[in-house]
Amino acid sequence: MHQTFDAALGIDLLHANQAGADHNRAHFDRWGITCLNVMSSPGAGKTALLEKTLAALYGELAIAVIEGDMTTELDADRLRQYGVPVVAINTGRSCHLDAQMVAGGIHTLEHQHNPKALDLVLVENVGNLVCPAEFEVGEHAKVALLSVTEGEDKPLKYPIMFQEADCLLITKIDLAPYLEVSIEQIAANVRQMNPDVTILPVSAKTGEGLQPWLDWIKARVQLIANTGNFQLSN
Amino acid sequence: MHQTFDAALGIDLLHANQAGADHNRAHFDRWGITCLNVMSSPGAGKTALLEKTLAALYGELAIAVIEGDMTTELDADRLRQYGVPVVAINTGRSCHLDAQMVAGGIHTLEHQHNPKALDLVLVENVGNLVCPAEFEVGEHAKVALLSVTEGEDKPLKYPIMFQEADCLLITKIDLAPYLEVSIEQIAANVRQMNPDVTILPVSAKTGEGLQPWLDWIKARVQLIANTGNFQLSN
Repeated sequence: MHQTFDAALGIDLLHANQAGADHNRAHFDRWGITCLNVMSSPGAGKTALLEKTLAALYGELAIAVIEGDMTTELDADRLRQYGVPVVAINTGRSCHLDAQMVAGGIHTLEHQHNPKALDLVLVENVGNLVCPAEFEVGEHAKVALLSVTEGEDKPLKYPIMFQEADCLLITKIDLAPYLEVSIEQIAANVRQMNPDVTILPVSAKTGEGLQPWLDWIKARVQLIANTGNFQLSN
Repeated sequence: MHQTFDAALGIDLLHANQAGADHNRAHFDRWGITCLNVMSSPGAGKTALLEKTLAALYGELAIAVIEGDMTTELDADRLRQYGVPVVAINTGRSCHLDAQMVAGGIHTLEHQHNPKALDLVLVENVGNLVCPAEFEVGEHAKVALLSVTEGEDKPLKYPIMFQEADCLLITKIDLAPYLEVSIEQIAANVRQMNPDVTILPVSAKTGEGLQPWLDWIKARVQLIANTGNFQLSN
């Protein structure tokens, strides 16, 4: 965990971040937008999954991406090819996105697009299996990825991310035949940390398992769209 | 980067950590021990590499391991099977080992073994490609692992770890044929961040590339042993 208390300023940084995240979420709710915070180790396949997701949902949902990376716009450029608004946030030396960074991304989106026309904002976090789990950014759900190449024991060794996740994608399942790894054992270890998480095995490369993931997103979007309408009507 | 300044206490946490790291290194130097800080994303193969390393160097070098994990002693138990002293440090919610945690590990080692009889202490850090790079623990060299499954672009997107590394192991090269990835391109991207780093492709599974890694370790140990002797004679 990060140093989260600045005694001189009297500010609990995690508490301040939470307030910022709630503020971001209020924006999303007012616009009827669902926000998903997508997190994993570096190289677990977040960007590849989002590429397939954007391609599959094109014309069906209006999506924007807030793309977090320490440096470069390599991932942002990959996703811009899918014809969606992508706001790149470079975190510099920071190992995670925080609510304030994402607020900046929201305001950029707001100035360049009509946010009310959007259904879904996908936040791709910095690749890190530890720190991003502790900093909400205003999301309605946390999506974590664990690739089969990372090994079966990761949910036990890095519990916080798995405890926090609403949806856990086991990625790169096309590589499982070349590894000494059991997808069932990974799922069992995830379940041990979080009995309620939705677990979806997927290969962005072959497309296997993509449809259940798209269905999960669409159900989430429907839920928030309904809630948003309800709030607006009051 | 973490919140590294506590204004109330007037302490720069990174500075305090550096002082602790220097203190740890002074201990190692006095005992003629080489300390390597082994870092990577979760699942890049740190423990598998250390298993092969301990097996290969058994009887040749006297090795101890300081094993950092957020929770569990799974990795520590794997390495204890190789007949070496292993001190497990659970970091709880912390995403990296710091100098103070490793100091605790050193004192445990000191009470249970004769440190002067050791040649090498391998510190296996928490799996995280960002944060551990900023917190020295008293090591003489930083070893970073990047698995071929993580993709070619990681050195560009997570530059600090690659800039800090003295030795960079490209791991799981046995999987390269099943991936759209070039080991040469990974190496070129690493080199772009750090022209002086030693780059060693390796597969812990097949043993390919293991010998150059063992040679690199032995050269490092020789270097420190010589320096240590020189210091003792003055």
